[in-house]
Amino acid sequence: MKKLRGLAIKAKKASYELAVLSSKLKEQALIKMAQALEKNYREIIRENKKDLISAKNLSKALIDRLSLNDAGIRLMADSLRQVASLADPLGEVIRGWLRPNGLWIQKIRVPIGVIGIIYEARPNVTSDCIGLCLKSGNAVILKGGSEAINTNRVIYEILHEAARKASIPDGAISFIEASERKSLSYLLGLNEYIDLIIPRGGEGLIRFVQEHSKIPVIKHYKGVCHIFVDEFANTDMAENICFNAKVSRPGVCNAMETLLVHKGIANVFLLRMLKRYKDAGVEIRGCPKTRKIVKDINKAKEIDWHSEYLDLILSVKVVANIDEAVMHINHYGSHHSDAIVTENYQNALKFMRQVDSACVYANASTRFTDGYEFGLGSEIGISTDKIHARGPMALEELTTYKYIIFGNGQIR
Amino acid sequence: MKKLRGLAIKAKKASYELAVLSSKLKEQALIKMAQALEKNYREIIRENKKDLISAKNLSKALIDRLSLNDAGIRLMADSLRQVASLADPLGEVIRGWLRPNGLWIQKIRVPIGVIGIIYEARPNVTSDCIGLCLKSGNAVILKGGSEAINTNRVIYEILHEAARKASIPDGAISFIEASERKSLSYLLGLNEYIDLIIPRGGEGLIRFVQEHSKIPVIKHYKGVCHIFVDEFANTDMAENICFNAKVSRPGVCNAMETLLVHKGIANVFLLRMLKRYKDAGVEIRGCPKTRKIVKDINKAKEIDWHSEYLDLILSVKVVANIDEAVMHINHYGSHHSDAIVTENYQNALKFMRQVDSACVYANASTRFTDGYEFGLGSEIGISTDKIHARGPMALEELTTYKYIIFGNGQIR
Repeated sequence: MKKLRGLAIKAKKASYELAVLSSKLKEQALIKMAQALEKNYREIIRENKKDLISAKNLSKALIDRLSLNDAGIRLMADSLRQVASLADPLGEVIRGWLRPNGLWIQKIRVPIGVIGIIYEARPNVTSDCIGLCLKSGNAVILKGGSEAINTNRVIYEILHEAARKASIPDGAISFIEASERKSLSYLLGLNEYIDLIIPRGGEGLIRFVQEHSKIPVIKHYKGVCHIFVDEFANTDMAENICFNAKVSRPGVCNAMETLLVHKGIANVFLLRMLKRYKDAGVEIRGCPKTRKIVKDINKAKEIDWHSEYLDLILSVKVVANIDEAVMHINHYGSHHSDAIVTENYQNALKFMRQVDSACVYANASTRFTDGYEFGLGSEIGISTDKIHARGPMALEELTTYKYIIFGNGQIR
Repeated sequence: MKKLRGLAIKAKKASYELAVLSSKLKEQALIKMAQALEKNYREIIRENKKDLISAKNLSKALIDRLSLNDAGIRLMADSLRQVASLADPLGEVIRGWLRPNGLWIQKIRVPIGVIGIIYEARPNVTSDCIGLCLKSGNAVILKGGSEAINTNRVIYEILHEAARKASIPDGAISFIEASERKSLSYLLGLNEYIDLIIPRGGEGLIRFVQEHSKIPVIKHYKGVCHIFVDEFANTDMAENICFNAKVSRPGVCNAMETLLVHKGIANVFLLRMLKRYKDAGVEIRGCPKTRKIVKDINKAKEIDWHSEYLDLILSVKVVANIDEAVMHINHYGSHHSDAIVTENYQNALKFMRQVDSACVYANASTRFTDGYEFGLGSEIGISTDKIHARGPMALEELTTYKYIIFGNGQIR
């Protein structure tokens, strides 16, 4: 515990140096860090194999996420280079104005300070988070899951060493090995030194972090995304969007989990759509009206409307009107990404205004909710919270602001 | 507890209606609410007297904050009218851009949802918070301290009734009477319905809220504000600023608590300055070097450098250079408001960049940290946190954003 505290104090100290580091130095460091990953790829793969051997009992999906090959390492390096090439978010004058008394107030973008990332599996999170935090001038403390401990450790060691050689202050990048929940709880109480916690992982981890943290948390809770096919939809477009949102990559958070269809179009649309889903191996769980239109499908239970399947399963509900669709989404959804398909101007506008989600689409697949797709560069996660950051979190979301006020003797 | 839950559910429901309410309707409601306060001032004063009778055993400062007279009620009403006249913060397109695939992404300003305000004494907080939350489209749940329960209740009832008559949805403004910590704990666990908690009050309350809340908290912790008088200061200016920052209103959070003086100027400056403080009745607690320059002053202990006196007490330290000043502020300060007095360009710039506080001043009194003084209109508090809002929190800080994305059939 004492060691954890010491590490957090060191990170805080480094954060003050990082805040005023030149953009050029950070850029050069990131490029050297990318090179170091590629140069040491054999070592990374060797360590990764250790984790894979211990992981034999884990699910196939988890092992998939854990595995690294040459191409995976190259992607990690490319991602660091891409972050290096992005504009430095710091120093931006967000707003500035002159007061009648001559005070010149400027609201400027600054780093948050020390960011703690608590994550599971996916070794690329290690390098992505190190890159984004360094670029945005934040010190980072990483705590990865035990199932990828060897891989994460070696990636950290390579990047830390390359950063050190490139004059990045010691303490800017830290890594915690301890895997017990007790040490995590302790970490979450260090609000004197750590400014923000971003948990990335399953529901259990997120809940644990939220319940125990005295430090502000920005989280991605879950993605229960909806598409509402309005009675005024272009049905061909609706079919393509609905198919894409469910089938293109069912295991991700921006995939659709519930399809809502206006009753005026349900007969025609659902017959075609559910046939297409069936051919693609999608299991349908329908409301009573859906089950009248298409036979031999499972019944959706209350819990289905809350469920993030992350799989080829879809709940389907016929709704009376757009108001019912909006209410369903705001009640059962996770405020992540939701779409309407319609050619009706009023309904599109109403949906955009009234749905309380980070990303609200008209006539496009929910699958676009992603830092890259938004053109923001790399992302550190997608927030389903409302405070500070919502939706894809990229460099700008890793910053805060302060006011600097230029005076010439003003008193009050 | 069930009642609290019901009230939060109702607030959440109202928040969806509030989010799309017209600016005009909100403005008219606020004006009618201001009129209602003035019309019913006798009733408010009657209820306030009840609280003052029970408050006999409280400190004079607390009783001062609790007392309301005609002028105080008029001020509350004027504040509501001023909020009514401000521009509606909602709907602003913060950024918007077109993606290569034709997706048109807009980041727009929306309300946060349901905001819980936990506060002590000061009855004007009741009307200020109701006004700011309504204007920014948020539902508000108020929980005031027991010492002002009669005053707060009557103000709430008057404003709630006026809002109801002006077609503001029921549930938009709620008030909790229960004063036990148990019900507060329960409230702080309702993260499904409440989106943000803003505590306003003493250190004990703030700590309790931070430790028990599962809902994000933005807090004003304390104001340990510093002024650093550099060796290159205009000493007349420094004297006026330092006097103003300590003496003009010592009981507020933006008053100076620690004076740092460069050793190169300490002899001359401190002799004059401490004499002026002495004449104004300010108790000085000095570091060893300060006590060598000016005799007969108390010794500053370690705890003094952390202390928010809120009184005519000042800790004084002679520092070797600007680096020591910056380190002292970042270590002992509360990241609220800190100032440098200097005519040196490099030092001013360095101080502005390196001090990690919400408001960093050059050559002006820290006393300007305030929503009105910044030209932001009313404020709901001053944040010493870094996430979401920093410094004076006005209408804009009571909002968040969402992305709305216009497509025409895009799939990924």
